[in-house]
Amino acid sequence: MPIIVSLDERSYPIYISPQSLHRTGELLIDIGGKGKVLIVSNPVIFRHYGEIVFTALITLGFEVQTCILPAGERYKNLKTIERIYQHCAQYRLERRSTIIALGGGVIGDMAGFAAATWLRGINFVQIPTTLLAMVDAAIGGKTGVNHAQGKNLIGAFYQPKAVVIDPNVLQTLPVREYRSGMAEVIKYGVIWEPELFNLLESQPQLSQYRYLATQDLEKILYFSCQTKATIVSQDEREGGIRALLNYGHTIGHAIETVTQYRYYTHGEAVALGMIAAGDIAVQLGWWSKDEQSRQKQLIANVKLPIQLKPDIDLEAIKLALNWDKKVVQGAVRFILPKKIGQAAMTDQVPPDVIHQALICLIAQ
Amino acid sequence: MPIIVSLDERSYPIYISPQSLHRTGELLIDIGGKGKVLIVSNPVIFRHYGEIVFTALITLGFEVQTCILPAGERYKNLKTIERIYQHCAQYRLERRSTIIALGGGVIGDMAGFAAATWLRGINFVQIPTTLLAMVDAAIGGKTGVNHAQGKNLIGAFYQPKAVVIDPNVLQTLPVREYRSGMAEVIKYGVIWEPELFNLLESQPQLSQYRYLATQDLEKILYFSCQTKATIVSQDEREGGIRALLNYGHTIGHAIETVTQYRYYTHGEAVALGMIAAGDIAVQLGWWSKDEQSRQKQLIANVKLPIQLKPDIDLEAIKLALNWDKKVVQGAVRFILPKKIGQAAMTDQVPPDVIHQALICLIAQ
Repeated sequence: MPIIVSLDERSYPIYISPQSLHRTGELLIDIGGKGKVLIVSNPVIFRHYGEIVFTALITLGFEVQTCILPAGERYKNLKTIERIYQHCAQYRLERRSTIIALGGGVIGDMAGFAAATWLRGINFVQIPTTLLAMVDAAIGGKTGVNHAQGKNLIGAFYQPKAVVIDPNVLQTLPVREYRSGMAEVIKYGVIWEPELFNLLESQPQLSQYRYLATQDLEKILYFSCQTKATIVSQDEREGGIRALLNYGHTIGHAIETVTQYRYYTHGEAVALGMIAAGDIAVQLGWWSKDEQSRQKQLIANVKLPIQLKPDIDLEAIKLALNWDKKVVQGAVRFILPKKIGQAAMTDQVPPDVIHQALICLIAQ
Repeated sequence: MPIIVSLDERSYPIYISPQSLHRTGELLIDIGGKGKVLIVSNPVIFRHYGEIVFTALITLGFEVQTCILPAGERYKNLKTIERIYQHCAQYRLERRSTIIALGGGVIGDMAGFAAATWLRGINFVQIPTTLLAMVDAAIGGKTGVNHAQGKNLIGAFYQPKAVVIDPNVLQTLPVREYRSGMAEVIKYGVIWEPELFNLLESQPQLSQYRYLATQDLEKILYFSCQTKATIVSQDEREGGIRALLNYGHTIGHAIETVTQYRYYTHGEAVALGMIAAGDIAVQLGWWSKDEQSRQKQLIANVKLPIQLKPDIDLEAIKLALNWDKKVVQGAVRFILPKKIGQAAMTDQVPPDVIHQALICLIAQ
């Protein structure tokens, strides 16, 4: 049974199963898809999985075209969206046509924005191929591109009609990207789902895809997607509870900004941000040292970083914190853990507590 | 009392009253607006009305910036949207900030698309300054721009938070644009609101703004906006009843296409399209010759064209009809009148009936 993201008439299923890529055609028919399909992907992913998806669709009578975009965050801009529009125009996509994103978060964000805005919105299906996209980016309807002045400034909330997750595709994912995705998985365990946290703790090894038993991996994906789906269902447009998903992201974003998005992956920065947030929570008496060390152990087991590189400029991080969009009327907003499986928001963290957490992040 | 467009949490008021431009600040406060406002306009409109709106906002403590775009449909493209984004970035618009469209349909469509897509959607207010925008474009949430391959191919459904209509601004509207707007007003009378049709018929002169008594003009605006609001409330995303609004537009669009959007204004083409659709309805026995001549008389009274220029290529029009997006599986879809105040959709119009209606449109 698929997980359902419940959003009234915008509800949609998340299918998680091995070989689901081969069933793309059936799944698209299930959700009422017909006629023209445009697959948006990048060269590497398309070389691995393009033919499977293409064949699955053609066999069932879909008229399939492809749009292959260069890989990388630096191409996530309006220029690349215009390339997708060119394909939409050339193949005369109609209101009932479908755009499929086959790739990671960048492909999903861009294909989704094009689907949201071509003919004021056509069908959209996510086939995420990275762990991060599977458990996070592909679910929830955030689409968009970067602007010269900042990331994701241009975009739309636009829900897909379905998310198709085939765990097998993770075998071709570079290990560093796998680990990055695991940071968000751990996040779900800390803020929402103790069973997920326990399942992760019970694994002898977590640092590579191949160490996980198929069934455990499926469970991990299931818990993660279910958590994201539940939170998004309750707060589609990020007015309330969805803020919990920013756990680890306040300091994480500041670290990414200061290191210019080059030194750490997003997941690595979030891992560091979760350790810092956990430390803040310990200082404030929100949660125990024991829970903090369990969180840190899990992060270490994934072989994600648990301390900041020593030459980083702490003052720059603090400055970046205050520029973050999560700042409301001067107070930095944090999501802090209360216990494994529960977190809450606060903008009442004293500057010296933040400072202390950052010091610990380097020194220990 | 404002007219309400009822769309659950996306509902919004349409204020129609003289001097409402001067009350922009209060009205924005009424709908919860605060902080930064970006006024998007064009040079001519801004020269006439920019200061009034600017002052009304500044006085009440809003932080106001402006983005003046070149006037004209040919600038309605992604390049111009990027100019609006530049302003959004430069003034650091936030999720609670507001974009105000002060202008006609082109300004409204572009400012609305920018508001829909900046930070995945910020507040948007329409202050339409043409009759066409007041009764049509500003209501209903269609936003977007043209693509090299066709009009309005890129866009979003995004409802404004309010529509502010000041009938007085029509005094600076060129007479040809006023008449174009009246074509859509007549349309509402034919497809939906017999009282509006009667009110129009009761006017001694309709062909210029200055012939109308203030109260009659307000009533005309009220009936028109109420009709559009009612239809949009029932069908936000154009899946059903909203198609009625295409009355006159099937042949109208074909005429615009064949004359390359240069010879006729949109309203003039729609006027011709309504006469042709009425003629088809007479041929099919849907409505009477008497009603058709009342419709034609009204169009003539506005000094809108009632016949096509003689050198037009009828075959080209028929070809364009079949390329229209309203074609579903080969059959051209028409909205035809059944009586004054009622219309219905059909795709069962025989080609020779269409041909005959076009012949009449030239010959008579």
